[in-house]
Amino acid sequence: MTELGANRYGKQAIRVVKVVRGRDHRVRDLTVGIVLEGDFAAAHVSGDNTNVVATDTMKNTVYALAKDGLTGAIEDFGRAIAGKLVAYDQTESATVTIREHGWRRLTGPGGPAPDAFRRAGDWTRMAVVRVDQTGTTIDSGVEDLVVLKTGKSAFSGFPRDELTTLPETRDRLLSTRVTASWRHGATPSDWDASHATLLRVLLETYADHESESVQHSIFLMARAMLAADPEITEVRMMLPNIHHWLVDLAPFGLENPGEVFVATSEPYGLIEATVRRGEA
Amino acid sequence: MTELGANRYGKQAIRVVKVVRGRDHRVRDLTVGIVLEGDFAAAHVSGDNTNVVATDTMKNTVYALAKDGLTGAIEDFGRAIAGKLVAYDQTESATVTIREHGWRRLTGPGGPAPDAFRRAGDWTRMAVVRVDQTGTTIDSGVEDLVVLKTGKSAFSGFPRDELTTLPETRDRLLSTRVTASWRHGATPSDWDASHATLLRVLLETYADHESESVQHSIFLMARAMLAADPEITEVRMMLPNIHHWLVDLAPFGLENPGEVFVATSEPYGLIEATVRRGEA
Amino acid sequence: MTELGANRYGKQAIRVVKVVRGRDHRVRDLTVGIVLEGDFAAAHVSGDNTNVVATDTMKNTVYALAKDGLTGAIEDFGRAIAGKLVAYDQTESATVTIREHGWRRLTGPGGPAPDAFRRAGDWTRMAVVRVDQTGTTIDSGVEDLVVLKTGKSAFSGFPRDELTTLPETRDRLLSTRVTASWRHGATPSDWDASHATLLRVLLETYADHESESVQHSIFLMARAMLAADPEITEVRMMLPNIHHWLVDLAPFGLENPGEVFVATSEPYGLIEATVRRGEA
Amino acid sequence: MTELGANRYGKQAIRVVKVVRGRDHRVRDLTVGIVLEGDFAAAHVSGDNTNVVATDTMKNTVYALAKDGLTGAIEDFGRAIAGKLVAYDQTESATVTIREHGWRRLTGPGGPAPDAFRRAGDWTRMAVVRVDQTGTTIDSGVEDLVVLKTGKSAFSGFPRDELTTLPETRDRLLSTRVTASWRHGATPSDWDASHATLLRVLLETYADHESESVQHSIFLMARAMLAADPEITEVRMMLPNIHHWLVDLAPFGLENPGEVFVATSEPYGLIEATVRRGEA
Repeated sequence: MTELGANRYGKQAIRVVKVVRGRDHRVRDLTVGIVLEGDFAAAHVSGDNTNVVATDTMKNTVYALAKDGLTGAIEDFGRAIAGKLVAYDQTESATVTIREHGWRRLTGPGGPAPDAFRRAGDWTRMAVVRVDQTGTTIDSGVEDLVVLKTGKSAFSGFPRDELTTLPETRDRLLSTRVTASWRHGATPSDWDASHATLLRVLLETYADHESESVQHSIFLMARAMLAADPEITEVRMMLPNIHHWLVDLAPFGLENPGEVFVATSEPYGLIEATVRRGEA
Repeated sequence: MTELGANRYGKQAIRVVKVVRGRDHRVRDLTVGIVLEGDFAAAHVSGDNTNVVATDTMKNTVYALAKDGLTGAIEDFGRAIAGKLVAYDQTESATVTIREHGWRRLTGPGGPAPDAFRRAGDWTRMAVVRVDQTGTTIDSGVEDLVVLKTGKSAFSGFPRDELTTLPETRDRLLSTRVTASWRHGATPSDWDASHATLLRVLLETYADHESESVQHSIFLMARAMLAADPEITEVRMMLPNIHHWLVDLAPFGLENPGEVFVATSEPYGLIEATVRRGEA
Repeated sequence: MTELGANRYGKQAIRVVKVVRGRDHRVRDLTVGIVLEGDFAAAHVSGDNTNVVATDTMKNTVYALAKDGLTGAIEDFGRAIAGKLVAYDQTESATVTIREHGWRRLTGPGGPAPDAFRRAGDWTRMAVVRVDQTGTTIDSGVEDLVVLKTGKSAFSGFPRDELTTLPETRDRLLSTRVTASWRHGATPSDWDASHATLLRVLLETYADHESESVQHSIFLMARAMLAADPEITEVRMMLPNIHHWLVDLAPFGLENPGEVFVATSEPYGLIEATVRRGEA
Repeated sequence: MTELGANRYGKQAIRVVKVVRGRDHRVRDLTVGIVLEGDFAAAHVSGDNTNVVATDTMKNTVYALAKDGLTGAIEDFGRAIAGKLVAYDQTESATVTIREHGWRRLTGPGGPAPDAFRRAGDWTRMAVVRVDQTGTTIDSGVEDLVVLKTGKSAFSGFPRDELTTLPETRDRLLSTRVTASWRHGATPSDWDASHATLLRVLLETYADHESESVQHSIFLMARAMLAADPEITEVRMMLPNIHHWLVDLAPFGLENPGEVFVATSEPYGLIEATVRRGEA
């Protein structure tokens, strides 16, 4: 006997750009992904597509809703898309992930340009909206935010055995590409302001704290974010440790007191944790 | 109150190549990833690294074990690595993912070369070994196997509403990049033979079946694999739908009866399912 | 008879990060590439490496010079590296390409952080320094600067034949990823100020002009740059045309007056031109 | 005075898949790039598009010609496309680059499948056809062919100075990703057979020779290819040196006599040379 277990499907990498026209144009640039769960067993087991909303239709849903429904934050747009898709009888959950690529207004010879932009590459704003019978959960977040500490970062006191060659250090470079998200217990009055505050607190804490490890840094950043916004219930982070190795310049007759490093891409450490508001 | 939730860490993208010397060399080329779960709360909460095995040590573990421990299948090598890492008191689980990049022996003017190879780019063999207190689970699999059906593929009978524009078709191209894995209920006597059989059955079924959808194809392939090997308990697949759109050649005065297509990369459908041996 | 034609070699992707310490740290983050031409025939023809400076030595040269020689602009650092490598007897030319990845100082709770940064992803500064017997040429430039015009962009009046289906338009989106470089006829007193001025003029012109085509935009931007800085002699640009297609929303009963677009990645136009100071 | 210098434009990443139907289907999968040179000054200087064939029209040209013109080798298809585009009055040259992605027929339960394939990832066949007033040049080639020698590879006798730390070796791993192309002096009677022969000779020589350096390997491979096919006039190669470093296992009490290596991706050496038929 063979039976179908967990299954889901959807459309990924739906690229949509919206120009909000007026005296000064505005640009919204999104990449949307959609995943549905529900009653799709017949499609698998007997090739019956009666319940299978085409992923092409999901794509059309994004385009059509973008026309009049993309007026505010991606959290709201994600909720609109998920709400539309979960309304099909056979759909039990709809999860919509949206990444927003930022554009900054250019300056022309006479001041801010009404219709020209450059892409902001520093980081990407993200939201994941899931709607099912139990309700709606919204996680907001940030991706591809690359940061570097050149001070106040240590790694020492870790266990040593016959396979340990890494020296202890009280002063190393700490670089990572932040993926962080936070779950909302209540809907904020202003998604953009909420996001800006939490990103500011994340970065201020990153800049300010004395790090004993990536794990330690995650906890301190997440704790500060939870303290700053009582409406979020948990923070999740996934931080690669992008190693920078001090170059041995001694063969060339040079000292290298923490100045010249090689940035590496592989291998890399990867540290993930969830920090949440605990029971009193 | 802030508390630590789920957390894990490890090393990714550990690249190791082993040359097995002899009259005819052999090459093993692996990318290894390691994730540990365990008692790492103090590192997060108070910056105490007493329990934090350095990810550099994990890397060294792979290198050192490769010397004498990489003699057979990646499933066995993964078990050796995971076993070593789960032996630390503070480690509750160790998950080791290994991808093996194949190399094919070259032919010289006088026959098979003893020491020259070309990389096989068709697909990558993969294994995920997880060891914890409850035991060991081993998933074997394949990645980056790109396949195409130019016949026996349909998509019709799906629901239509005001957002549906995709026409029904009884004859389309079906292309995907297979990620498939299967869980072992018992250890096979020969990992390589088991892998070869299951990959053969997967491909034969892909080639032979009449597909009503990607979901349908997943089920038929997985069912055939479960039937072919009584020692596996479930098959998981994640298949992107790499759309090929028929080009409209009518403006150029040409018919196009299923001949000229545009291959696209985005957006793409993504279909995932687990198929398992059911209760009788 | 077989003979050696043009040949060259070097090291690519040399990643070096320098921390300039002091009360406030500064970060320099470079990717360096080196290419040498010279008398390397014996290495090819007879396996004689007497003249082949190891590419590993080139890498060491970058690391060693970074210690005390990376104090100013990448144009100066490139000149130092090229000068060192062209000094070998067998070297006829040395070409050094440097990309600088920007980092922005973070703000902590108490103001600008002395030792924490986030990576600036908007664009990459680039310099190519070539030294040979005839002298030194220095090109400065910018890469990965993605820009978008939502107004003042047309494409019309192009030839139509039986293979032309693209409609004419007086209002389209124009998006590109700018690669631009400019050659210096004289050494500026301040590389950074020169670069900032030329990048500002490039972007102001992009924002301000009425574009009839990518070709037209290149010419106008380059002409403005040549006018702004009498010390540069030519500007080269390579601009992909990143197509944004208006979505047909009519099937959904919606109008789409230049609002909702699909951003595409392939295929793409690619337009390249050099614009130079002409003879009077 | 500002004047236009060298300029060119075209379409890149045109993806076209052709299914040749019959009892057994065949698949052709191409990525085509087009570059035109000609009289395009007015477009740049005055925004006059009279001469600017739309890159969209170039794309249509590929699709339309694929219908009936893609029956043989990519060299012939490239010649057809280039011939069509160079026929415009304003076009002085057309250069067409085609990469063909291979597909291998799958085997079903009953033998070779008529309509199912897996993608061959080992290497990509390539052709560059340039047509201008002086005639037609055709280069055939191969890309992304990754090879590895575990024996018969040395690097020694190179110059040493204060910046040289690389030890000499008479036994190292030599791995590269081959980009090779060869120019035809005469049109071969069978493009596919010619390509197969030259690729075979390239690989046989790679497998068989004693390498003193990447430069040496290039020369020996190219010389053998020129000897094998009197109709080609030159061979060009661009070979990265993908370094594999021996892991120091001594800290773990293990010897490592050429067995365990780390494969690296950056930095990498890059060696380029042309080898041609010389004057007697």
